[in-house]
Amino acid sequence: MAHLLSTSCSIKLSSSHRPLSQPFHQCPTKCLTFFTLGASKYPFKRFVLQGGTQQANCVVRAAVAPVSQETPTQSSSGPQQNSSEPFKPKRVMVIGGDGYCGWATALHLSNKGYEVAIVDNLIRRHFDLQLGLDSLTPIASIHNRLRCWQSVTGKTIELYIGDICDFEFLSETFKSFEPDAVVHFGEQRSAPYSMIDRNRAVFTQHNNVIGTLNVLFAIKEFRDQCHLVKLGTMGEYGTPNIDIEEGYITITHNGRTDTLPFPKQASSFYHLSKVHDSNNIAFTCKAWGIRATDLNQGVVYGVRTDETEMHEELCNRLDYDAVFGTALNRFCVQAAVGHPLTVYGKGAPLFPEDASGETVILENMIWKMFYLFAYDVAYDTRGYLDIRDTVQCVELAIANPAQPGEFRVFNQFTEQFSVNELASLVTKAGEKLGLDVKTISVPNPRVEAEEHYYNAKHTKLIELGLRPHLLSDSLLDSLLNFSIKFKDRVDTKQIMPSVSWKNIGVKPKTLAA
Amino acid sequence: MAHLLSTSCSIKLSSSHRPLSQPFHQCPTKCLTFFTLGASKYPFKRFVLQGGTQQANCVVRAAVAPVSQETPTQSSSGPQQNSSEPFKPKRVMVIGGDGYCGWATALHLSNKGYEVAIVDNLIRRHFDLQLGLDSLTPIASIHNRLRCWQSVTGKTIELYIGDICDFEFLSETFKSFEPDAVVHFGEQRSAPYSMIDRNRAVFTQHNNVIGTLNVLFAIKEFRDQCHLVKLGTMGEYGTPNIDIEEGYITITHNGRTDTLPFPKQASSFYHLSKVHDSNNIAFTCKAWGIRATDLNQGVVYGVRTDETEMHEELCNRLDYDAVFGTALNRFCVQAAVGHPLTVYGKGAPLFPEDASGETVILENMIWKMFYLFAYDVAYDTRGYLDIRDTVQCVELAIANPAQPGEFRVFNQFTEQFSVNELASLVTKAGEKLGLDVKTISVPNPRVEAEEHYYNAKHTKLIELGLRPHLLSDSLLDSLLNFSIKFKDRVDTKQIMPSVSWKNIGVKPKTLAA
Repeated sequence: MAHLLSTSCSIKLSSSHRPLSQPFHQCPTKCLTFFTLGASKYPFKRFVLQGGTQQANCVVRAAVAPVSQETPTQSSSGPQQNSSEPFKPKRVMVIGGDGYCGWATALHLSNKGYEVAIVDNLIRRHFDLQLGLDSLTPIASIHNRLRCWQSVTGKTIELYIGDICDFEFLSETFKSFEPDAVVHFGEQRSAPYSMIDRNRAVFTQHNNVIGTLNVLFAIKEFRDQCHLVKLGTMGEYGTPNIDIEEGYITITHNGRTDTLPFPKQASSFYHLSKVHDSNNIAFTCKAWGIRATDLNQGVVYGVRTDETEMHEELCNRLDYDAVFGTALNRFCVQAAVGHPLTVYGKGAPLFPEDASGETVILENMIWKMFYLFAYDVAYDTRGYLDIRDTVQCVELAIANPAQPGEFRVFNQFTEQFSVNELASLVTKAGEKLGLDVKTISVPNPRVEAEEHYYNAKHTKLIELGLRPHLLSDSLLDSLLNFSIKFKDRVDTKQIMPSVSWKNIGVKPKTLAA
Repeated sequence: MAHLLSTSCSIKLSSSHRPLSQPFHQCPTKCLTFFTLGASKYPFKRFVLQGGTQQANCVVRAAVAPVSQETPTQSSSGPQQNSSEPFKPKRVMVIGGDGYCGWATALHLSNKGYEVAIVDNLIRRHFDLQLGLDSLTPIASIHNRLRCWQSVTGKTIELYIGDICDFEFLSETFKSFEPDAVVHFGEQRSAPYSMIDRNRAVFTQHNNVIGTLNVLFAIKEFRDQCHLVKLGTMGEYGTPNIDIEEGYITITHNGRTDTLPFPKQASSFYHLSKVHDSNNIAFTCKAWGIRATDLNQGVVYGVRTDETEMHEELCNRLDYDAVFGTALNRFCVQAAVGHPLTVYGKGAPLFPEDASGETVILENMIWKMFYLFAYDVAYDTRGYLDIRDTVQCVELAIANPAQPGEFRVFNQFTEQFSVNELASLVTKAGEKLGLDVKTISVPNPRVEAEEHYYNAKHTKLIELGLRPHLLSDSLLDSLLNFSIKFKDRVDTKQIMPSVSWKNIGVKPKTLAA
């Protein structure tokens, strides 16, 4: 797997390239004919592509403008702004900007007037290819997305295609784009994916930890005032029997008191990789004066944001499969196609187990059956948020940067629900739309308490000005209606694939899913 | 660097091979003529090497006996012993068994009657080659060491040469040796090494984290009752303002109580890698039922153990350089050669800094000057232990294994000292031997509090029966006398090389040191 990420890509596309199964309405752009992306070893000039009578700054660069041979040093890069003025970030690099949260964030920041660059190796699309999965919504190529955005808004988002585990590539993006802030979504972000087999467990930890280390070194070396906004997860905390604070907890012990990192109890190799990241980042803030914000995000739902609604070709992805889909999104898709909502856990009628301890698979689910959904244990309570709040939170973090040396942690969610509560909400909303929504219970293959205390604090982003979109009936209607619109694209075999926390093996799983 | 570790080695040695600068007394063995080590892709048969009229079981295997093509499964491997009987480990795999603590441990366990195998890729010796460093004591090749051990004691230690990051190799060692316990020393273990440059920081985290993940998968897949005894470090905890407990702390917060992992605040990429390991291991204990003991070890001093004293060729390494040497060992060597003891920190007369913030190097230290010693900040207090207690602790952990699913944490040290206290002890002991010991202070390049509260608990190993060797004058005499014996081998240029926590860069450091 690692070799997939070891080099930057080199591709050539024409505007007629349309990899999607459903045609889009024609995006009203005349600006592009073709462009070329180069490997990072051969830096490319900025391509300013013209069409018709109007000059368009639809810039796509795989690498960057020519770079001098001198090695930038910490002292020569210096602070980006006069230190007496408040730090006002203008240029934001969105790593993983082609993904679910990344795409919505990149557009939102561009729309708000930031200069935005997307850095992405497109591995998320590759995972879909390998596992035989697809977004519910048809999504355009990143290149067509950016062309469309430029033609609709006149705004340019730069594109760097390559792998941040390749430090030479990452260095070039930093030297070329000179970010004031980096939003780092560029990680393998599925817990079930990290639990498929040893290869994918190792890939997840290597990719996430080394990628983040490289980002930290790039900031230190090339943009020492750059603010790192790193996506963490609420799953880092696990489910302690005490209130979850935002990153730190003050402990009095044997008559002495200190404020220390909140203890973490992650429960998958993916979640663990995020804990590793948090620890690495905290150290570099202290040792090097990096400014960083760790956004411990809850489960994201929804697909539309103000920007993705501007044109069909800007549409975001919506994952409903058991590897990358999140609970509420998947429930809405299940309701739309008449599939029972899948809730795991206590009291569920168990599938019989055979002599080897393997769960016997029902015949109609043979091929792509996963036992494990990321957040679907019946009594399991977690924090949730609308994707419109994800983009709002990231913008708030960027507009109010951490101080040099500060490692700031925000818990990024707006409401807590148990999975049973979500299922009940979807059932009620479905009924209003005339859907007959059923729920089935299946055994929980995860290793965790099924009933537990859960109370996580989330006030810091509210204090910065977050105005949450709460999970209302109208929102459910909207997400449900969206699911109904694309229900012909649903592959029901994707709904219940099987990953088991206990049965993960060392032999690579080579079947599609 | 990674390529160095990506394959198992294939070498051929003859008994006349003597890579050492000082000759040994002839080890009284006639058993060996030559042996061959093979790459893991081509499993080798066990070589039982004969010499003279006596058959000797001095076994060296790079890979293992022929393996059938069937893939072992969790269910087929099964528990190693009847579950109704207490788990009595007999076969112990020592990963990193050619290193400082690993070698002493392997001999000790063999001497105590365990069947021992050493798994090592010999990268520690390679680091010395690359950095131009050497042990104070002359050390034999691992092959000669094991020949000597066999001839002196009649006991066999098996040898597997290869990299645990190579899962195919590791699998073969597990299937061949079938360990009841794995002692895992097989990590890059120097904080300064991890702070030399980006390459080495990334190498350290990749090597340590992925290697340990592989060990966990190998245990799960091939020896599910095998007890993992993992070497951690007291440095994982940092220096909180509260007492450091052994792994866990009970916290009462907002009226609720839970016992949670003790918060970690590691302060180098090396220490962080150990924190990552601890988190990964804790998860697999919970999810897979792995039994594990995390030994958070303090700073180890001393060189002699009962077993290494049996023959000159069994001598352990003693590092006095600024990358791999630990505080007390280095102080004794400094005293022996008349070099001032190097103490960093508060109140020290600082070297002047030039305009770029780089410390100006004194002329006679130009080439191999490191600013940073691992544990040498004047007021910095840490836990210490004699290497004879290291081997005792590991044996106690093995003889009293963790339960399935238990993640047990012991703080493995016997006494706390500040660096100033150590320097004072060495000075006094030196005076008794007629040495004129001076101390110099140099600035602290680390980023940490120089004066701090430090009180770490360490009762669990005592409860299991540890009888500590405390740091007495006689011990100092012994270590000092040892240093004096080999003082002609001291390369004073190794004493003060420079690694700076703040000045670590992205450009690989290619000079020897």
